[in-house]
Amino acid sequence: MVLPALVDLADSNDDWRVFVGSGFMVGMVCVLIAVATRGERPKFTPRLGFLLVTTVWLFATVVGSLPIYFSSVNVTYAGAFFEAMSGLTTTGSTVISGLDALPPGILLWRSLLQWLGGIGIIGMVLLILPSLQAGGMALFHMESSDKSDKVLPRVNQLTGGLITAYVTLTMLCAAAYTSLGMSFFDAINHAMTTLSTGGYSTHDASMGFFEDNRILVASTLFMILGALPFVVYIKAFLPRRFQLWRDPQILVFLMTCLVLSFSIAVTRRIINETPFGEALISSAFNLVSVITTTGYASDDYTLWSNAAIGIFFLATFLGGCAGSTSGGIKANRLVILYLVVRASFRRLVRPHSVIRLKYGNDDISTQTIQTVTIFFFLYFGTLLMGTVLLTMIGLDLITAFSGSLTAISNVGPGFGQIIGPAGNFASLPDAALWVLSAVMLLGRLELVTVLILLFPSVWMD
Amino acid sequence: MVLPALVDLADSNDDWRVFVGSGFMVGMVCVLIAVATRGERPKFTPRLGFLLVTTVWLFATVVGSLPIYFSSVNVTYAGAFFEAMSGLTTTGSTVISGLDALPPGILLWRSLLQWLGGIGIIGMVLLILPSLQAGGMALFHMESSDKSDKVLPRVNQLTGGLITAYVTLTMLCAAAYTSLGMSFFDAINHAMTTLSTGGYSTHDASMGFFEDNRILVASTLFMILGALPFVVYIKAFLPRRFQLWRDPQILVFLMTCLVLSFSIAVTRRIINETPFGEALISSAFNLVSVITTTGYASDDYTLWSNAAIGIFFLATFLGGCAGSTSGGIKANRLVILYLVVRASFRRLVRPHSVIRLKYGNDDISTQTIQTVTIFFFLYFGTLLMGTVLLTMIGLDLITAFSGSLTAISNVGPGFGQIIGPAGNFASLPDAALWVLSAVMLLGRLELVTVLILLFPSVWMD
Repeated sequence: MVLPALVDLADSNDDWRVFVGSGFMVGMVCVLIAVATRGERPKFTPRLGFLLVTTVWLFATVVGSLPIYFSSVNVTYAGAFFEAMSGLTTTGSTVISGLDALPPGILLWRSLLQWLGGIGIIGMVLLILPSLQAGGMALFHMESSDKSDKVLPRVNQLTGGLITAYVTLTMLCAAAYTSLGMSFFDAINHAMTTLSTGGYSTHDASMGFFEDNRILVASTLFMILGALPFVVYIKAFLPRRFQLWRDPQILVFLMTCLVLSFSIAVTRRIINETPFGEALISSAFNLVSVITTTGYASDDYTLWSNAAIGIFFLATFLGGCAGSTSGGIKANRLVILYLVVRASFRRLVRPHSVIRLKYGNDDISTQTIQTVTIFFFLYFGTLLMGTVLLTMIGLDLITAFSGSLTAISNVGPGFGQIIGPAGNFASLPDAALWVLSAVMLLGRLELVTVLILLFPSVWMD
Repeated sequence: MVLPALVDLADSNDDWRVFVGSGFMVGMVCVLIAVATRGERPKFTPRLGFLLVTTVWLFATVVGSLPIYFSSVNVTYAGAFFEAMSGLTTTGSTVISGLDALPPGILLWRSLLQWLGGIGIIGMVLLILPSLQAGGMALFHMESSDKSDKVLPRVNQLTGGLITAYVTLTMLCAAAYTSLGMSFFDAINHAMTTLSTGGYSTHDASMGFFEDNRILVASTLFMILGALPFVVYIKAFLPRRFQLWRDPQILVFLMTCLVLSFSIAVTRRIINETPFGEALISSAFNLVSVITTTGYASDDYTLWSNAAIGIFFLATFLGGCAGSTSGGIKANRLVILYLVVRASFRRLVRPHSVIRLKYGNDDISTQTIQTVTIFFFLYFGTLLMGTVLLTMIGLDLITAFSGSLTAISNVGPGFGQIIGPAGNFASLPDAALWVLSAVMLLGRLELVTVLILLFPSVWMD
């Protein structure tokens, strides 16, 4: 909170008091917790692990919400909590309009939340969850701890490598934005929300504000880099660098971006008669923004055509690669499900054939298939439950369903008049913001981490 | 086709020629096929089995579409094919408006298609698909062929028992409708489309035409009977009749109907201030109609409230029980997925515990879990692909998504202005009707049966 306080002070804005005050409050609570929990360490169990991860994320959200609530921005506490959750989960949905007129401190705070949330999720997926054998991420565990293919084996080195890669990419992105004409402040903020695939902007018009196709191209590139598995950046410094292509999800993810961007550009050429080159740049930017779960927009793409809406709708489910800052179902799971379907079809036709399932060079275990199944079931189950709860609060079907969808995938914009790319979440009632905050948290922590705590049998000893 | 021809003749309507002509054409084609395929029988392989099931269903649809196309109803061939597919798959979506003024022959033809489609799907799921080890239905195979719990073991007896149960229930339903004041013709037609959970009516206002709550209650009851696994009706004549409750899907399905109907009635009491008793009857009728994938409507329930829409939306996914005439995901799959999630959560918390998964009295094998996973993945994959194709044709998102959903679940009405319970599919372009026909067929044949034919590797020897 020191950084935004300094920025506001430099801008001679009164909001610096908010950051100092919030920082003081948080510090006091931390001291109290530290005092209250002195004594022997409890035995570490998986249950405690899930509880800790969820609690830490919730505590961080409360901390993140304080400066927003006490600042000159006029929001309810539900709104501030939603904004902080949307930031830390790198979703990018916002309840704030009039961003261009906000003091720089609060804008920097929003970007910082996303940037920290981005590195936080990579760290959690790579370092903490594998030791809990949790969810879809056990797969990643397999990759990063496989004995024959060690990636800087020691945890400290891995952490250092990830942070270095994340900081370096962010700086490169900021440099690219500055050189293309963004102000230094805008470039830093957008670089942080690009690499974290977060999508908060310092302008209501999002990336459309700059009206510069070169910025869109640069942003597209860095969003893709943010949605690739971060281990590849560490691997790239090892001798066998073409390992990159051995992780099949990367190729699938890149091909999906390409095919869907082209499809949208083609429909715009045909339906809207937009020149193909121009259509391709903005189609690719907005599509990549949705599929990487960033959530920037350069146009209201829901006005392009129903065909474009259909493709954006599909992209909202998909997501980037596992082990990145992006959300959604993710390419690795889609690859595994496809392989399972293909193998099962072959077995139906030739009952006596033996089929070994391989993801890249690794065997796919029954355990992995079950883990992916569970994710898939929980994903659609949560999506539908979220939809029903939101309609109960009074939202129309399209807002409720696309709101629940954009929250669980951590994308940002939904569909329809209210929460589409040209709208925002300010007009939703507080109850809906609480539901959406919960769904964002569930989606970000890969569902299992949170939902497991709701099962009574987990608490029985 | 003899029946509707006689009915039209009795009504002195010229459409009887259509049925005779269509019948003659179909007869000729059958003779030609029989002649062309004389000679040795090919070896029966699973591949041939899937091909046969799909081809027979498509051929039946073409046969079903001829009288509709040549009759006095004014539809394109795509419309007639859609209407026949919607009939045989017991979906109940229609492109025809002005039902009340149609000649009785064509109305009876539509009802017959649904009634035959209903018994057809039960027969296929119970008798043909288990021998192909196919899809989610292998589970049912497990139940009906389990050695310790034989249900009239021989195929002929089973078939006879099913047909007897189906005919008896239909006659009981028709008797109930007649005694509650329906005309004999209406009663027969509605009984056929109730037990098949099809949903075609002889009136544009569907069941709302009769304005009689007692008819709604009777219809709700018989729709539920149509959505229960049909083996229970044969089991009921065996000594141990309380076996019924050992199939967990039945209890889950009934509880879901109860809870969702009550929820809708409560929201209507609160939001619309409808008296609770009245609200409960019409809420239960319309909800059961959607969850059993019948598709009758007594009101435009999308006008009740957004909360009601949300619950109907959820119900459109769920479906009835496996081994019934209903569609959707079905309660047995939901039960299995829930059990898998619970077991996996337990294992995450207590890595060393041993958990045996049981569905009723039977163990759930890895094979079953994989089969359910594949269904779940194909269901949502097809749903989204259908949505994208329909938006490509120009449909808006809500029509495209709910159209694809209502088709894959074989429900009938969708959501939104166009294909909601008060609208119909007449205004959709032909291309959309073809896509929806394909999705209905996919949903009805449990996806695997059709999709497996599209995999190139299945055709390689």
